[in-house]
Amino acid sequence: MTDRMIAVGVNGYGVIGKRVADALRLQTDMRLVGVGDVMSDYRIKTAVVRDIPVYASLAEKAGEMEAAGVPIAGVLDDLLAAVDVMVDCTPKGIGARNLERYRQAGVKAIYQGGEPHSLTGHSFVAQANYQSALGRDATRVVSCNTTSTVRTLAALRDAGLLEKARGVLIRRATDPWESDHGGIMNTMVPEPHIPSHQGPDAQTVVPELDVITIAAKASHTQMHNHYWVVTLERPAAREEVLEAFRAVSRIAFVRMSDGIVALNSTLELMKDLGRPRGDMWEVALWEDVLTVNGTELYYTYQVNNEAIVIPENVDAVRALAATVQEGEESIRMTDESLGVRQDFLAA
Amino acid sequence: MTDRMIAVGVNGYGVIGKRVADALRLQTDMRLVGVGDVMSDYRIKTAVVRDIPVYASLAEKAGEMEAAGVPIAGVLDDLLAAVDVMVDCTPKGIGARNLERYRQAGVKAIYQGGEPHSLTGHSFVAQANYQSALGRDATRVVSCNTTSTVRTLAALRDAGLLEKARGVLIRRATDPWESDHGGIMNTMVPEPHIPSHQGPDAQTVVPELDVITIAAKASHTQMHNHYWVVTLERPAAREEVLEAFRAVSRIAFVRMSDGIVALNSTLELMKDLGRPRGDMWEVALWEDVLTVNGTELYYTYQVNNEAIVIPENVDAVRALAATVQEGEESIRMTDESLGVRQDFLAA
Amino acid sequence: MTDRMIAVGVNGYGVIGKRVADALRLQTDMRLVGVGDVMSDYRIKTAVVRDIPVYASLAEKAGEMEAAGVPIAGVLDDLLAAVDVMVDCTPKGIGARNLERYRQAGVKAIYQGGEPHSLTGHSFVAQANYQSALGRDATRVVSCNTTSTVRTLAALRDAGLLEKARGVLIRRATDPWESDHGGIMNTMVPEPHIPSHQGPDAQTVVPELDVITIAAKASHTQMHNHYWVVTLERPAAREEVLEAFRAVSRIAFVRMSDGIVALNSTLELMKDLGRPRGDMWEVALWEDVLTVNGTELYYTYQVNNEAIVIPENVDAVRALAATVQEGEESIRMTDESLGVRQDFLAA
Amino acid sequence: MTDRMIAVGVNGYGVIGKRVADALRLQTDMRLVGVGDVMSDYRIKTAVVRDIPVYASLAEKAGEMEAAGVPIAGVLDDLLAAVDVMVDCTPKGIGARNLERYRQAGVKAIYQGGEPHSLTGHSFVAQANYQSALGRDATRVVSCNTTSTVRTLAALRDAGLLEKARGVLIRRATDPWESDHGGIMNTMVPEPHIPSHQGPDAQTVVPELDVITIAAKASHTQMHNHYWVVTLERPAAREEVLEAFRAVSRIAFVRMSDGIVALNSTLELMKDLGRPRGDMWEVALWEDVLTVNGTELYYTYQVNNEAIVIPENVDAVRALAATVQEGEESIRMTDESLGVRQDFLAA
Repeated sequence: MTDRMIAVGVNGYGVIGKRVADALRLQTDMRLVGVGDVMSDYRIKTAVVRDIPVYASLAEKAGEMEAAGVPIAGVLDDLLAAVDVMVDCTPKGIGARNLERYRQAGVKAIYQGGEPHSLTGHSFVAQANYQSALGRDATRVVSCNTTSTVRTLAALRDAGLLEKARGVLIRRATDPWESDHGGIMNTMVPEPHIPSHQGPDAQTVVPELDVITIAAKASHTQMHNHYWVVTLERPAAREEVLEAFRAVSRIAFVRMSDGIVALNSTLELMKDLGRPRGDMWEVALWEDVLTVNGTELYYTYQVNNEAIVIPENVDAVRALAATVQEGEESIRMTDESLGVRQDFLAA
Repeated sequence: MTDRMIAVGVNGYGVIGKRVADALRLQTDMRLVGVGDVMSDYRIKTAVVRDIPVYASLAEKAGEMEAAGVPIAGVLDDLLAAVDVMVDCTPKGIGARNLERYRQAGVKAIYQGGEPHSLTGHSFVAQANYQSALGRDATRVVSCNTTSTVRTLAALRDAGLLEKARGVLIRRATDPWESDHGGIMNTMVPEPHIPSHQGPDAQTVVPELDVITIAAKASHTQMHNHYWVVTLERPAAREEVLEAFRAVSRIAFVRMSDGIVALNSTLELMKDLGRPRGDMWEVALWEDVLTVNGTELYYTYQVNNEAIVIPENVDAVRALAATVQEGEESIRMTDESLGVRQDFLAA
Repeated sequence: MTDRMIAVGVNGYGVIGKRVADALRLQTDMRLVGVGDVMSDYRIKTAVVRDIPVYASLAEKAGEMEAAGVPIAGVLDDLLAAVDVMVDCTPKGIGARNLERYRQAGVKAIYQGGEPHSLTGHSFVAQANYQSALGRDATRVVSCNTTSTVRTLAALRDAGLLEKARGVLIRRATDPWESDHGGIMNTMVPEPHIPSHQGPDAQTVVPELDVITIAAKASHTQMHNHYWVVTLERPAAREEVLEAFRAVSRIAFVRMSDGIVALNSTLELMKDLGRPRGDMWEVALWEDVLTVNGTELYYTYQVNNEAIVIPENVDAVRALAATVQEGEESIRMTDESLGVRQDFLAA
Repeated sequence: MTDRMIAVGVNGYGVIGKRVADALRLQTDMRLVGVGDVMSDYRIKTAVVRDIPVYASLAEKAGEMEAAGVPIAGVLDDLLAAVDVMVDCTPKGIGARNLERYRQAGVKAIYQGGEPHSLTGHSFVAQANYQSALGRDATRVVSCNTTSTVRTLAALRDAGLLEKARGVLIRRATDPWESDHGGIMNTMVPEPHIPSHQGPDAQTVVPELDVITIAAKASHTQMHNHYWVVTLERPAAREEVLEAFRAVSRIAFVRMSDGIVALNSTLELMKDLGRPRGDMWEVALWEDVLTVNGTELYYTYQVNNEAIVIPENVDAVRALAATVQEGEESIRMTDESLGVRQDFLAA
């Protein structure tokens, strides 16, 4: 690592962007220069309350933002001029439009899972392929569903256990703050195509995974819930499988026997632990539900779609900046800064 | 069939009992003598409005019921004295307590899926094992989840396609009328054990099925939603699989391309078709989502938990009464009386 | 009434239109010529299943509809040529665009509450102002919320009891079939302005009402739930208030003591009574919750937003056609055809 | 204030108890000795993770708790021996049973709103009646709904504006962590009696309030939402009403124009502000929805049922301990420690 702090910007202060900004401020080797956005309402005003410099992502929005009481530190070009790496957290599709602009400004860029792999040619999960991102101009942190899929399946693969995995991914329908977009009520909405895109998306990170996913939305707003049927390379003891998962720092076990009986138990647990925004960066896998039956393995876990990719974004900054050469070291730094745990209830 | 109508009673006028009563009244070879219950509120008063004789299932409740304005035709013994077959739709556990009483009255009895297989030693899905119930004293119509599992997997087996099936069953959390029991809000609740009981329960009907199920509740009140990964005996064309399902009269195809994109689309469709209570007796399987990939088959369907077992109960009456010798004939009679369809949208 | 049947068309086969079509088919003095729409999916295909002639509301959609398997009886001009009255149930705003077209075809027209009063200069609730619509070219059946407000407050006024009324209207968020529009999850959304529009809207029917409304959406899909604080002209006995409501055929009493304890109890009750689509055309007012305290009256009722305006549309047809001169007579005819009740549980 | 810290215990580490414990630890004049409970699951284990001494509220539960990995600092008697004041946050009804025990131990006690006023003869809202609690043996912090009612109506009274208030209180159905108790789905449940208990409950704090409330539960888990129609003593300008509310430190204005358009907007705002557990201690009143019309005032606000009583409990400790003589001074101390704000978005 160089002595110099990496200067980072965040473009898009939404569900992911605001969390990335918070996480960047906790890193001792990074400096958050500011965040860009186009909004004028409470969402960006809280950045001001928290003393984060705000830039107008679109110059033509600057006037409106200032009129609404949001002091503007500059426009996107100003932010670009001041950063080494930009974490693009703009809505799906807009990131792609920003690509050329970042490139011309000589700024490295990290995109989110809403963008296609082809945008950067590299998709990122720290545990699986940090090294291959070292020094690149750009990468894409994969989506929440894909990140959890890669963390768990790569763990099984690394332990020599994985033959193939079939997953049913029940997604939260929309984000908890939404009141006019994406809400579903008293229903489930299956994705119209099987396999769903998450399986192939995991293969953009670990091409050799044999994984098929089926997806649907259910009538809740927080936590995706995945159910997996895995065929093992060979019969394995339950404990051997648990050990494989324990090797990954961002998988945490929860237990029905501790009263964690539903997605909302875990949300309450995160609040009880004092987590910022109630965030869970880990995959929360039910240890006492996991079952091995010959060469078949069954398990279920939950994914905090708002938070799971946050540590990955932090690691991606280091990988592009090439200030830390080993993924394990970056993961350790990030995990420590956030308070990532493998056992939420250990005193 | 004999000339004589089968005299049938229903004990328990709840979610299943009231629907069984309606269905029995549509049969030309059966006569609904009356329904037994212990309630005094709107649920039983609608039986009165619909001219169904009401009996007090517990003699000590008769006074309270009459005081509430529910005219009582008699007590359970009176109902037992007047019927050949009793369909027991009482809450889980109470059916078992009634067993001896029905037996002593010389009345054949049908129980629901909440009771254990061991209660009668026979579990029933018309399509799969009507014959083995002929003339028996008692049987158990399996639960909604198990009924749908048997209908679909037996279809694949009958076509020589089924090697093994792994299913994720996302259940509705509670019935739509409930306001103080079983409701969950903005969450999912996985069952604490894998495999869940539905797989073994299907084997009480078709022992040779290789089936494992994983279950959870989601935050909606109508329709279970099953997701299956099936290993086929041999590679098969998609059309061959569809044909296997088309051989079962109580599996109906729905299509995303017709705008049936969610569980609540189907509920609306049932209402649009003028179905009583909006009931769907069929398994509604998404034809255009079903995918075959080599020897793997993936599909999803929905199950109206309130209604799917209704035709099975009707068939079970005939099987116990032994008035119709062939399951196919009984199924045809029941389906015609209810208006069961394989294509909801065919003119 | 003339001997001739009134020829009626329905333009827009959505939530309201399909119910109006059903109701029209039950009238002995009307003939449903057909329904117009632009869709090609299950929603219009069920009209075909039910043998209702379908017309393409937009000529350019005819090809697409036929390609999807919807046989087309003609285009909107054909339907207009064959009807005396058109019930326009198209989405908000489109009705206004159709006005001139109906007029040029010499067809009388009924619009729904989404259109403004100014469109026709007449707003309709049968109980309150049938007479003033007699022979008009057009009227507007007011919205579900406004219809219930007028029914109840006009009843109090007619009994000489009403001084002023203040209501809090908690609306269902979206219709039960919706899966991609208007859904809200685990929240409430207050309307940003007080008073909300329903109070003034009631005054388009009964101008002298002193009524202020406050509105919000809650996280359910069926039944609006209104809470009223009414100042009476004079102290009144509770029974006197109940009598005032009993004078209106389309207000029905429900009771907590009958187990009707929530909005979904009533929905179940409607299904139990065999109502088509589970519809409730009446305002369901909780008799045993209503309280009089000096000159203040408090009560709560629920409104089936999908169904309450259906009888009003039927009456509006007769009023425009001027075949029945008295509102009371039309209301009686409509109520009898549908099975409207003031006491759902009377045997 | 004496130099000595007030020693405080919390009995019952549930939704309220855990928040009270957190708040007590932020006070410079108090010391949290420990918390009592009977549970062994994640809920109490998080107290351990946070280094809060845990006592067994029932001695017979100590073994079970230790077996589950919860180190026990002692039993309830031990905790009682070490504290000056106990904040009883046990479930409704149990507090009453503890009364004699606290008294015998010579420990002052604070109960929650689930207990009746008669238990202690004093009900507490700091802003309204801190003085009358000074040095008492016990008081009861009123419920979340009542606390918000008193804060707002006492503000209007103090400004000489309040004649009478009529409120419709739409409550959240159950707490967000619950998965098997109190959940309702896709419905609303009105309370069976009008007036509901909250009006009279407010009068236990401010007897002269003329207030009637109507209550219901809606299908969400966080935030009560109140709608008020207030008759003013005299016509007042809108700004005068706003000033009356601004005089209360625990009422905060939110604005639709800032994008706070629903209950879940505010929840997101609290998370964005970094509030622990996303808590809101203030009544959040929509400034730009509030309307004055002659002598009538209409407004709506939301109440975080989990958090609003927390500052009141802290103040109640000081009042009973009689270490701070003025309510205003205690409120200032508490507000500062927590970060209570009247404008969430002021930089």
